[in-house]
Amino acid sequence: MNHLSPGVWGVVATPFRGSAREVDEASLVRLVSHYERIGVTGLTVLGVFGEAAQLSSTERREVLEAVADSVELPLVVGATALGTAPVIEEGLLAAEAIGSRVTALMVQVNSPRRDVLAAHLRAVHEATGLPIVVQDYPAISGVSIPADVLGTALADLPFVAAVKAEGPPTPPAIALLAARLDVPVFGGLGGIGLLDELAAGSAGAMTGFSFPEGLLACVNAWREGGFDAAREAFLPYLPLVNFEQQVRIALAVRKEALHRRGLIEESAVRPPAASFPATLCEPLDRHLAAVEAAVRVSEGVR
Amino acid sequence: MNHLSPGVWGVVATPFRGSAREVDEASLVRLVSHYERIGVTGLTVLGVFGEAAQLSSTERREVLEAVADSVELPLVVGATALGTAPVIEEGLLAAEAIGSRVTALMVQVNSPRRDVLAAHLRAVHEATGLPIVVQDYPAISGVSIPADVLGTALADLPFVAAVKAEGPPTPPAIALLAARLDVPVFGGLGGIGLLDELAAGSAGAMTGFSFPEGLLACVNAWREGGFDAAREAFLPYLPLVNFEQQVRIALAVRKEALHRRGLIEESAVRPPAASFPATLCEPLDRHLAAVEAAVRVSEGVR
Amino acid sequence: MNHLSPGVWGVVATPFRGSAREVDEASLVRLVSHYERIGVTGLTVLGVFGEAAQLSSTERREVLEAVADSVELPLVVGATALGTAPVIEEGLLAAEAIGSRVTALMVQVNSPRRDVLAAHLRAVHEATGLPIVVQDYPAISGVSIPADVLGTALADLPFVAAVKAEGPPTPPAIALLAARLDVPVFGGLGGIGLLDELAAGSAGAMTGFSFPEGLLACVNAWREGGFDAAREAFLPYLPLVNFEQQVRIALAVRKEALHRRGLIEESAVRPPAASFPATLCEPLDRHLAAVEAAVRVSEGVR
Amino acid sequence: MNHLSPGVWGVVATPFRGSAREVDEASLVRLVSHYERIGVTGLTVLGVFGEAAQLSSTERREVLEAVADSVELPLVVGATALGTAPVIEEGLLAAEAIGSRVTALMVQVNSPRRDVLAAHLRAVHEATGLPIVVQDYPAISGVSIPADVLGTALADLPFVAAVKAEGPPTPPAIALLAARLDVPVFGGLGGIGLLDELAAGSAGAMTGFSFPEGLLACVNAWREGGFDAAREAFLPYLPLVNFEQQVRIALAVRKEALHRRGLIEESAVRPPAASFPATLCEPLDRHLAAVEAAVRVSEGVR
Repeated sequence: MNHLSPGVWGVVATPFRGSAREVDEASLVRLVSHYERIGVTGLTVLGVFGEAAQLSSTERREVLEAVADSVELPLVVGATALGTAPVIEEGLLAAEAIGSRVTALMVQVNSPRRDVLAAHLRAVHEATGLPIVVQDYPAISGVSIPADVLGTALADLPFVAAVKAEGPPTPPAIALLAARLDVPVFGGLGGIGLLDELAAGSAGAMTGFSFPEGLLACVNAWREGGFDAAREAFLPYLPLVNFEQQVRIALAVRKEALHRRGLIEESAVRPPAASFPATLCEPLDRHLAAVEAAVRVSEGVR
Repeated sequence: MNHLSPGVWGVVATPFRGSAREVDEASLVRLVSHYERIGVTGLTVLGVFGEAAQLSSTERREVLEAVADSVELPLVVGATALGTAPVIEEGLLAAEAIGSRVTALMVQVNSPRRDVLAAHLRAVHEATGLPIVVQDYPAISGVSIPADVLGTALADLPFVAAVKAEGPPTPPAIALLAARLDVPVFGGLGGIGLLDELAAGSAGAMTGFSFPEGLLACVNAWREGGFDAAREAFLPYLPLVNFEQQVRIALAVRKEALHRRGLIEESAVRPPAASFPATLCEPLDRHLAAVEAAVRVSEGVR
Repeated sequence: MNHLSPGVWGVVATPFRGSAREVDEASLVRLVSHYERIGVTGLTVLGVFGEAAQLSSTERREVLEAVADSVELPLVVGATALGTAPVIEEGLLAAEAIGSRVTALMVQVNSPRRDVLAAHLRAVHEATGLPIVVQDYPAISGVSIPADVLGTALADLPFVAAVKAEGPPTPPAIALLAARLDVPVFGGLGGIGLLDELAAGSAGAMTGFSFPEGLLACVNAWREGGFDAAREAFLPYLPLVNFEQQVRIALAVRKEALHRRGLIEESAVRPPAASFPATLCEPLDRHLAAVEAAVRVSEGVR
Repeated sequence: MNHLSPGVWGVVATPFRGSAREVDEASLVRLVSHYERIGVTGLTVLGVFGEAAQLSSTERREVLEAVADSVELPLVVGATALGTAPVIEEGLLAAEAIGSRVTALMVQVNSPRRDVLAAHLRAVHEATGLPIVVQDYPAISGVSIPADVLGTALADLPFVAAVKAEGPPTPPAIALLAARLDVPVFGGLGGIGLLDELAAGSAGAMTGFSFPEGLLACVNAWREGGFDAAREAFLPYLPLVNFEQQVRIALAVRKEALHRRGLIEESAVRPPAASFPATLCEPLDRHLAAVEAAVRVSEGVR
């Protein structure tokens, strides 16, 4: 069995520095070390939030190596392309760069037809030997697949290690997939539906929220105390979750938050992604201060 | 000056009953009376959440009359069409049905071109004599207008009574519009960005959240205590806000919540809108129970 | 049996005049009289190309009455709304305006779910007593339905008089629908795929091309000589067909062509529709001259 | 000056063979040799119609080398990615593979903001040293840019070698760009608007129509005899142009046509692209026969 462990998987940002926005390895190491320290289950590298679509293959290799060298966490590696041959190439590059440190390759749904999708996933697995995390993210892929078709497509694929369900509305989709499949199903989307995804049967969160401590608090509380405990634990983080998960600017907001938390040196995103709107500076500071105050109180209580 | 008063404007659901899903006037009266009792600033009738696009003109008139007869609140009436002549017809129907009780007609942005939009709004105002609330809701209208173009289009239109900004990301759009225009700008979208919209300069919320008490608590706290107070006041409601604001099923979730709160008799929506997914029954009950518990605590504290 | 007769159904433009762009009845009468004179099978009034979404109900009635009074052709009346109750209201208005002159009501596909669609069509038929032409036009309705689902939805509905298939690619969709259903299936989209739609089993064209003589020539040639004859007959018109069927500006181009042909007095469209780009004036004249020359030659030959 | 020569640039299909759909070099050589023999101005390799998004970098290199070795035509090389770093990587791969045989790199519009787009193009040019063909193809890139913004963005970029305008409606866009810029502007989209694009000032066609002889006939006739001559020359090909340019299946239809013409061995496309619908077999044969007959007649006349 190669299923991903349940819990919180951090989707790692790729920090950039300077006017050329080069990959900032030192910040990357700082960031993933923080993730390891707070106790996430694993990391997802080169995902959408990692701006993998903006990186050359040399840079992708650099990112993978830096992360693998810095932490001992299991690593899911995202593939950006939708075509079979380029996805295989991405998988082979990951395997070549960090070998057995690749826990699974994350592959996007590339067709609403279950036979086409299954053949795609099978071909990628066969050529790379890697377990596959299937990501359903229509806002990025442009492909919409009904949850029941996705469930049918994946039902007979033993190499599937997990599903990342990001086609809203996610709670009913996750309820269907979790009932149908025996692999773990994770929510994403910055955690905006985390509580309801857990209630629907998700195995946790795989996303890039700037305060992953909140995702951990919620998922851990869920295990111990169910809905009410998870709700209570997530409350202090939820205003920031909603603030971050704004269409088009979510990436910029999150990197700015990571920067202000001191986890990365600069908040720059690579164009054509939108940059952080100046009008949101003060609200972001207020959000971060409020979360930090709430966390201090909660830690003081313990 | 005919500007809308700041605060919370409730967007009224249209309850249906029986297998024919006829307009349920008794539930409608119960619902708007609840709104009046809790102290909203005004009501928006025949909006998107009121399923106006599913009502005949006879039914629209029936809804308007029932609401006008039941409460003394100011009433904004939504227009469904995008073409000038049909919007004028809707405005005249409203004026004929409830006369001076129409505080303003809410008209959707129907073009990304500022001259075309301004001419549309002017023609509607001239033909109906009504103040205009301009609704920017691209998910419904199919029309995307940059916030600065919208600001320019509306800058010289003295009959504009308010803007309802529902083109995400709304906080930077509202910041721009609030700085540019002297009319109040309201957020919508179920309140999912309410805190950040207030921080951006919004005059309040105009939306259909099933627990409008939460919108009131947030807006009132904002006035008295700013960001931190508003954040604190909104927290207990936020998980339910996120649960409700799910794409495609938001209408069904909200009507189900209103039904379970006892505010309407049946939760039916008119097709082709999606109905409430059975897998969300238990989570909805948990959300409602949690909100009610939180509200009781907060009231007990006072 | 209430099936529409095969052949060419002209989708009638609504001409406007003056700065207020009022309905120009005289032009409308001239236009539909031309259609009758050239021998079309019937007319479709208040369709998308008739700018029905820009007309008040008073104007819709005026258009229906003017057309019914001017020609003896069978009339399909388009419904603009997607909700059941408003569509019924549109059907009743048509029946009230021109009574038994309504051959069928054209209703848009409003859901990709076959049960929801079938219930919608059944409710409209039951409330109005009218035969139904089902229009699948995703670019307008925003609803995409696979052809096989549409075929299944309509298979058991005896009141369906025809299907208008405008979800590209139309030739394979029409092949499927024509094999599956016993009702006639018409193509639209300005005739851009007419030849291939006939080859796929369509019953003809129902569209608003400015030179409907070309649609007639093609469909008549098909009956007499099959593919090669229809291809030959349509050739002189095809460059103009492609010129007209340009996204966003098709309406403006066609009305300008009708105006230059002398069939309507003014070419104005109602905003927010795009107006005719000045850079296309000369090409349009060249197209019209070339078609007229070709037609003269072909008539001289006879 | 590094502007592309006006005329017809063939966008080269990538033929596949066998169940693994491997690149079929022999067919590729046959295809591009045909292009050279009939006298096209140049070739565009690794474009959208070349299924570049389905090829690994090894395969891309293989395609480039095979084409460069087989013909002496100038070669434009398409880049698939939208991010700056990956596009640079694609450009460098092309330069490494076929060196000075790269006439220009074709880069897609990746932002509707002119400053972002200009910076992207500049960075790609500086890193690769290659002249740039700018492709505006919103259906593929997901990015819509108004023609005037595109014109402004490109006005000061001396390394731009041409524009490929595929954002419909193309005739008014090309009219604007051709008036504004001194670089050649080409139409694409299978030639469906070729006549009108020439009338608008285009420098010719850069597209993948299965009968490029028709594009040549049209463009050559335009030079010698203007609109009427070009129209006449293009007529016999236009029904096939329309048949091919069907959304979602255009790629499959064209490869099937190339196969039936004997220009490639197999018609297979790589999934998830849709395959050729069986119901279109007979119509395709009829189209091809009609074109061949028309061409024979026209050659006999000469």
